[in-house]
Amino acid sequence: MKHIILVAALAAASVGLAETIKLPAPDKDSGVSVIQALKGRHSERAFCGKDIPVELLSGVLWAANGFNRPDKRTNATALNLQTITVYVCMKSGAYRYDAKANELVKVCDKDLRPAIAAHQPYAAAAPVSLLITADVSGPAYKDKRSTLTHYDAGIVSGNIYLYCAANGLVTVCRGSMDRDALKKALNLGDKIILHLNHPVGYPLETKK
Amino acid sequence: MKHIILVAALAAASVGLAETIKLPAPDKDSGVSVIQALKGRHSERAFCGKDIPVELLSGVLWAANGFNRPDKRTNATALNLQTITVYVCMKSGAYRYDAKANELVKVCDKDLRPAIAAHQPYAAAAPVSLLITADVSGPAYKDKRSTLTHYDAGIVSGNIYLYCAANGLVTVCRGSMDRDALKKALNLGDKIILHLNHPVGYPLETKK
Repeated sequence: MKHIILVAALAAASVGLAETIKLPAPDKDSGVSVIQALKGRHSERAFCGKDIPVELLSGVLWAANGFNRPDKRTNATALNLQTITVYVCMKSGAYRYDAKANELVKVCDKDLRPAIAAHQPYAAAAPVSLLITADVSGPAYKDKRSTLTHYDAGIVSGNIYLYCAANGLVTVCRGSMDRDALKKALNLGDKIILHLNHPVGYPLETKK
Repeated sequence: MKHIILVAALAAASVGLAETIKLPAPDKDSGVSVIQALKGRHSERAFCGKDIPVELLSGVLWAANGFNRPDKRTNATALNLQTITVYVCMKSGAYRYDAKANELVKVCDKDLRPAIAAHQPYAAAAPVSLLITADVSGPAYKDKRSTLTHYDAGIVSGNIYLYCAANGLVTVCRGSMDRDALKKALNLGDKIILHLNHPVGYPLETKK
């Protein structure tokens, strides 16, 4: 795998809210087997600050919520409503993962990792934090059924864990974050649930 | 992989509620990569009735909720409370997966697959249905926090999907089931949530 470092891709891109980062194709076969990934799956809270290659960022996003068929995803969702959207929080700003276009669309110029890590500062050390959100504005989510998207978010989290374990990255699933600050910065309304976040990076020990 | 068929293992075991099925070691390396599994991940609703080998049953249970370290699991759980228990519903009865002992402990002599499939009969054709439950009796689950186990159940579901996709099995995540009948048959109290179920088997087309 070519080590195109994410920060380089960002530096080459134009700055501003209109910025869109085209991701490389995410589906190259690499990494270990599902069994090996399950053996290595763990929650890591000690991140080194080293950036991750943009290919791996593309890969973990595809694993989380990408398309593996023209109209369906790597992750199952209740009633196939595909209500999950993943945001990417990095030093250069926050981006919405557009899975169909395989792009990151900038939605905020600020580094929102401190808001992700508000209650547990260790999380701010990871170069990337993925924010798993769900849109419950649809008719299927009246009344009590909004809990369906909790399952959806969990499935996305499981995929992130296994992709990371298979590709030398580490992560941890967290419910803790400054939800008010994130909702405001990302301009998300009442019908968007901020479910979970996943700092992703390399472990502190190896300093790869 | 030796094809020891599940039904043979069951026939060799003694009958009755005290029956315990010792599972083979689940962690042999087999199956495809995480990327390949993510490419093939889908929800399948057309099952052939063919039994699955007991090694794969052991594997999918380990992937779902097994131990990959002395005290931690293949699946993350909120606050590491490890509140998930998986039940296995088969023709011969229903069993609790004892992940530590790597055993199936019989808890009901009845075939509960019809209760799993109550509202969607296709699900009864699968030789095995996994039932993902969570125990919310602990102090961490007072008030609104019982929704934390929805995430836990989703992560387990994601692992089941990827294990199946990596090992030639198919599955679908379902919230539909006859909860009252299952709770009664499995003798589960108010503090146990029946979250999701996963029929697991071979697809109807291939008739492997």
